Amino acid sequence: MAGEERDGRLEAMRHSASHVMAEAVQALFSGAKFGIGPTVQDGFYYDFDLPQPLTPEDLEAIEARMKEIVAADLPFEREQVDVATARRVFADQPYKLELIEELQDGPLSIYRQGGFTDLCRGPHVESTGRVGAFKLLSVAGAYWRGEETRPMLQRIYGTAFFTQQELEDHLHRLEEAARRDHRRLAKDLDLFSIHPEVGAGLLLYHPKLGRARTVIEDFWRNEHYRRGYEIVYTPHIGRALLWERSGHLTYFTDDMYPPMKLDNADYYLKPMNCPFHILIYKSALRSYRELPMRLAELGTVYRYERPGVLHGLLRTRGFTQDDAHIFCRPDQMEDEVIACIDLSFFLLGAFGLHEYEIYLSTRPGKAVGEAQAWEDATRALRQALARRGLPYAVDEGGGSFYGPKIDIKIKDALGRSWQCTTIQFDFNLPERFGLTYVGEDGQEHRPYMIHRALLGSLERFLGVLIEHYGGALPVWLAPVQAVVVPIADRHNDYARRVEAHLREQGLRAEADTRSERMNLKIREAQLQKVPYMLVVGDAEMAGEKVALRLRSGENRGPLPLEEFLRLACEDVAARR
Amino acid sequence: MAGEERDGRLEAMRHSASHVMAEAVQALFSGAKFGIGPTVQDGFYYDFDLPQPLTPEDLEAIEARMKEIVAADLPFEREQVDVATARRVFADQPYKLELIEELQDGPLSIYRQGGFTDLCRGPHVESTGRVGAFKLLSVAGAYWRGEETRPMLQRIYGTAFFTQQELEDHLHRLEEAARRDHRRLAKDLDLFSIHPEVGAGLLLYHPKLGRARTVIEDFWRNEHYRRGYEIVYTPHIGRALLWERSGHLTYFTDDMYPPMKLDNADYYLKPMNCPFHILIYKSALRSYRELPMRLAELGTVYRYERPGVLHGLLRTRGFTQDDAHIFCRPDQMEDEVIACIDLSFFLLGAFGLHEYEIYLSTRPGKAVGEAQAWEDATRALRQALARRGLPYAVDEGGGSFYGPKIDIKIKDALGRSWQCTTIQFDFNLPERFGLTYVGEDGQEHRPYMIHRALLGSLERFLGVLIEHYGGALPVWLAPVQAVVVPIADRHNDYARRVEAHLREQGLRAEADTRSERMNLKIREAQLQKVPYMLVVGDAEMAGEKVALRLRSGENRGPLPLEEFLRLACEDVAARR
Repeated sequence: MAGEERDGRLEAMRHSASHVMAEAVQALFSGAKFGIGPTVQDGFYYDFDLPQPLTPEDLEAIEARMKEIVAADLPFEREQVDVATARRVFADQPYKLELIEELQDGPLSIYRQGGFTDLCRGPHVESTGRVGAFKLLSVAGAYWRGEETRPMLQRIYGTAFFTQQELEDHLHRLEEAARRDHRRLAKDLDLFSIHPEVGAGLLLYHPKLGRARTVIEDFWRNEHYRRGYEIVYTPHIGRALLWERSGHLTYFTDDMYPPMKLDNADYYLKPMNCPFHILIYKSALRSYRELPMRLAELGTVYRYERPGVLHGLLRTRGFTQDDAHIFCRPDQMEDEVIACIDLSFFLLGAFGLHEYEIYLSTRPGKAVGEAQAWEDATRALRQALARRGLPYAVDEGGGSFYGPKIDIKIKDALGRSWQCTTIQFDFNLPERFGLTYVGEDGQEHRPYMIHRALLGSLERFLGVLIEHYGGALPVWLAPVQAVVVPIADRHNDYARRVEAHLREQGLRAEADTRSERMNLKIREAQLQKVPYMLVVGDAEMAGEKVALRLRSGENRGPLPLEEFLRLACEDVAARR
Repeated sequence: MAGEERDGRLEAMRHSASHVMAEAVQALFSGAKFGIGPTVQDGFYYDFDLPQPLTPEDLEAIEARMKEIVAADLPFEREQVDVATARRVFADQPYKLELIEELQDGPLSIYRQGGFTDLCRGPHVESTGRVGAFKLLSVAGAYWRGEETRPMLQRIYGTAFFTQQELEDHLHRLEEAARRDHRRLAKDLDLFSIHPEVGAGLLLYHPKLGRARTVIEDFWRNEHYRRGYEIVYTPHIGRALLWERSGHLTYFTDDMYPPMKLDNADYYLKPMNCPFHILIYKSALRSYRELPMRLAELGTVYRYERPGVLHGLLRTRGFTQDDAHIFCRPDQMEDEVIACIDLSFFLLGAFGLHEYEIYLSTRPGKAVGEAQAWEDATRALRQALARRGLPYAVDEGGGSFYGPKIDIKIKDALGRSWQCTTIQFDFNLPERFGLTYVGEDGQEHRPYMIHRALLGSLERFLGVLIEHYGGALPVWLAPVQAVVVPIADRHNDYARRVEAHLREQGLRAEADTRSERMNLKIREAQLQKVPYMLVVGDAEMAGEKVALRLRSGENRGPLPLEEFLRLACEDVAARR
């Protein structure tokens, strides 16, 4: 089967599994009312209005009944009906009736299998026997039509595959994703916390995550300086005047925190850093010689996200963008885009992320800026990708209203995509703020402006890294790089000497000299995903050695302390 | 004369100068109404209600008339009067009448010299001839009694010294201070800007100041890690719940920005980092083994300061504290205080600040916390200072209500004092948040908590550094460390090669290859206070050399590039 055809058949089969689930629910819960039962990425669901909350045992019973229905191999039968018939068929199903009212202009179809009938466009597989290996996964509350004022239904999620093997692989991936869930790991590894008295979506970095962030910030700043960026610092608040001029108060208010009223003015938390960088650009008359000007900031911004979408580090209300704005001349656009792409790949690669998907998004229907500028900028983006020989997909009309862009999504160890880098032209803000430079011709020109974030935000990127590595961050990022474990108390002094020596050489080492058993200390270091465990006993003490154990479980045996140090420093330098 | 007696006489003399000034104003401006005329640090002022604004020419005229009054050597005559008499004497002076009403319970005294009479407690010198060398400095508006609803008076500032030489020295220092004013230097050196559309007291760091801050942050973080601190990151906002619990909403609201109302909760910008560090401490059960726990953060806080007191970097509404909170056991207090003092001296010394004044502030009348805790903590502070052999002044009762503290003020190149380091115990927050640790005895204990900021805030500290060095920051902090100046265009390539080589070695070098004259480039680099100017011509090109010129104006002549590099790296490493 070709990919697309296979996808279509898989979807039809999952949709049929959803109907089979509904049939089982109908059989087990008299009086059940039915919402909708579509397929989703990797599976399907169905929303039910039931007299009592579903228990895990209920799910098992539903699954068992589904298996019987599949074994019975009942045909799916389609029938085209008029509205009156549909109303009669679903007379005791208020949710279906509501849908029928909305669909009364078009042709209606119903599908039947066994004793179950559904209002449904299809398609389905021929018979229930064609439903493959399936599994019900969870139950969640879901408002009818997603509206908070409508009844709360119970949504059962399930998944189905053609073969048992595919199902098992998928369940294994889900398990792995749960195992790597950064929120769970954050607890185990003591990485961050969220507190109701501080507010939803606002993170407190604990020391270990703080350490990883510091390492990333240092690396990021050095690399930006090396590549001709300037680093600035700007306030976290600004007056309404600024956000009116930038247009944020017109287009972005719903995503902003409400104002603080002070001295007869409204102050807003910044949702973006751009207007501040623009003010720095505007603080002097600029000449063509000063361009490109690349202003970068690790800028913490605050945005209102609905409580339901907040998700640990991955979706927060306060996050630090690795932001920059590049102001350049037309003849510099393409090189600047290439430099952004190169820096993106360099940074992401340094974190061990080597699989990408690249998207180019072009002019949408509603847009500001001159057609010529859009064309030039879009060509610069295309040319940059071509010069680097990078394959990309085009999202026609998918650019933002203010300019075309390139997005780079990384693939993590579980094959999931994460948007990290975005490189966007902006034809809006330079106009709104009246940005200019004096060209070689002595005339005023409008500079091109590029927004770019490469990691995206530090919070989100740390979340991705934690899940990608299942918490076992590479040595150069690991909060604690080495734990020295004395075999007995008489080795404590040597352990402390080793610790001190490694620290002097810049390694993050800790001697665990608690009066606990060695095996417990090793197990704890292992659980803390410390890259190097250095066990020291009589032999090691005598020979200035350490017995190296890796978190993979591999024992490297005793080696001279200096040799370990060389090896560890090599790992750090190579960002392994 | 002993110091104190001399100070008393100087003050009386300046106070007399103020009366002489008032007499001159009375003679020159008929209908003048008089406010008050006290001495201040380094001088005196008098507030006048005059029909028109004073011009610089008016000040000259007043000074001339004052000289005549001094030459006339008129005696100061004191008279004790009753309220009725005082009312009669000052019948046409509404401000004096207001003061008389307030003072009517006590004895009143008036002083006369020549044709001028003032309501005044004294003391004064014997006669106007005893007024020494004086100078009127400036005029500023000042509300009567400092209240914005009262009339705006004109305040003339002046200064006076016993000798002409002392006066000239002082005026020279004032001139020097103006020359070093960081707000002026910030313009010349393009360091930061403040924008009405962002808000008063909110700074945008331009690239050059950003560079200095990055260097300081790196240094600060490394040194804190080295000394056993952990670095955390916390949000800039928190809900009212948090600030109620911490007591900030009770005691500190006037200094806070107003709330943002979101999801039925009030969110406040943080005026301090403490409650967040406390939540991190509280996020797990703590054992005595984990203490001391030292949580540090370069935490940006926002406080409402009245518009009148805002002053460039030195007094802002948003600033980044180099903050830390230390949680420790009673037996660790003294060592922790010593470690704070040592780190403070190390950091301040690294910035070339070697003159200090140390203050110990003890329990005030109103205080929270047990007497024993105050005693123990105060003893720990004293002992720490004693063990380091540091002289200090005691400010009895000058501690804050929550604990005793040590303040370290540095003296800058102009002899001015700047509070930088503060090391404070806090008996309030651990109680309010119910902080505990499990002791060796298995029981719960309250940890001691120390707040400390060593540089104070990065903004203020940068302001102090800029003024201390008159903008010529030490090499290791200088945004641009070396400018390479080609003598002619044919040396541009070599200049760029030198630039590239220096950059590779980590120096912040720039080749100035504009088509401008060499002398102009050198002058500009000099004005930008760049530490090293490297002039390159035929001879330098031939011999892989650079001709080194320092910003002091000193010419070091040609030396091999590698030798310069060694020299520069030594300066950076030694933080010169």
